[in-house]
Amino acid sequence: MTARSPGSRIDLPDREWCVLGIDPGTASTGYGVVMETGSGDYELLACGVIRTRPEQPMHLRLREIFLDIQKLIHEFQPHEVAVEELFFGRNVTTAITVGQARGAALLAAALADLPLTEYTPATIKQALTGYGNADKFQMQAMVRQLLDLDEAPHPDDAADGVAIALCHLQTGRFQALVAGA
Amino acid sequence: MTARSPGSRIDLPDREWCVLGIDPGTASTGYGVVMETGSGDYELLACGVIRTRPEQPMHLRLREIFLDIQKLIHEFQPHEVAVEELFFGRNVTTAITVGQARGAALLAAALADLPLTEYTPATIKQALTGYGNADKFQMQAMVRQLLDLDEAPHPDDAADGVAIALCHLQTGRFQALVAGA
Repeated sequence: MTARSPGSRIDLPDREWCVLGIDPGTASTGYGVVMETGSGDYELLACGVIRTRPEQPMHLRLREIFLDIQKLIHEFQPHEVAVEELFFGRNVTTAITVGQARGAALLAAALADLPLTEYTPATIKQALTGYGNADKFQMQAMVRQLLDLDEAPHPDDAADGVAIALCHLQTGRFQALVAGA
Repeated sequence: MTARSPGSRIDLPDREWCVLGIDPGTASTGYGVVMETGSGDYELLACGVIRTRPEQPMHLRLREIFLDIQKLIHEFQPHEVAVEELFFGRNVTTAITVGQARGAALLAAALADLPLTEYTPATIKQALTGYGNADKFQMQAMVRQLLDLDEAPHPDDAADGVAIALCHLQTGRFQALVAGA
C-alpha cells in the first residue's frame, strides 16, 4: 500500500484506467487512488485522509480540502472521480456540513473536467461484496483481496475512499461485460 | 438599482467599504453587492441571481455557481463576503444540496483571501429591522429605505443577497459605535 500526503510527485506507472475515490467530510476526507492494469488487476496507488482543524473557520477548512484534492488530481491524473453519495439519517446540521465538504470535492473534479460518478453506501457495499448491507469487516476483507494487500488501508476514511474507487472500477467492468454479452 | 449578470466589468466608484452578500442555493444563488460610501450612505452596486439547470449534473452546477461568484469578486473587488448561515427544519436531502452550494460560495471567498462572515436568517432580520421575526415585506421595506430605492430588488433571492450584505455593513457600523463609546 502506498500511503502519502497529497503533494509529492511520483512516477506514474503505465495504467489502463485510474480512479480517484473520495469520501468527503469536513474534519476528515478519505481518498483512494486505484488503477486497473492492462491485465485486469487492481493496484492501489495511494490512499489517505485530508484532515482539517475544527478551530479553523469553515471556509478555510473547505479551501484546504479543495486544494488537497486538486493536488491529488494533479499528481495522479485520474481518468475519473467517484464520490460517496451522502445518505444518512443524522441531523440537518451534520448534513449541511458534510454537504459543504462534498461541494469542495465535486468542484475540484468539475474544474479539472473529470467525469464524476456518485455511489450510495449500499451500492458501494453491493459492488464490492455482492451484499448491500455488508459490515465494515466484510468490506475491508474484500478491499484487501481485490488489491492483494496484507492489511486493509487505514484509517477507516482512507479505506472508504479506496472502496469507492474500487466500486467504480467494478461497476465499469460489470457494465462492459453486459455490453459485450 | 444596478442588476447585471456577473462578468461585465464596470468602473468602480470610490468607495469606503464594499460587501458581497450571498444567499446560496443549488438552483438559485442570490447575491447583492453593497458599498458604504464615505458619507455613510449605502449604495447598491449590483444584485442578481445565479441560476443553474436541474438537468445538469450536480458538480457542473456547483462549478457554475463557483465561477460566477469568482467573476463577481473579480468585478466588484469586495472587501468582505457575508453568507447566510443555513438553518432550516427541512429534510436532510435539501440540507445536503444547499450545503454543497454553500461550499462553492465559501470556497470562492476563501480562494480570494476575503474575510467571510456568516449570519443566521434571524440575525439578518434583526440587523435590518430590529426584529428577528420580521416578514418578507418588512425586510423589503427596510432594504428599499436603506438603499433609497423605488422598489425592492427582485427576484426574492437577489433581495436576500442584498439584505445579507446590508446586515454585515449594519453590524460593522454598530460594532464601531460600541467600540467608540
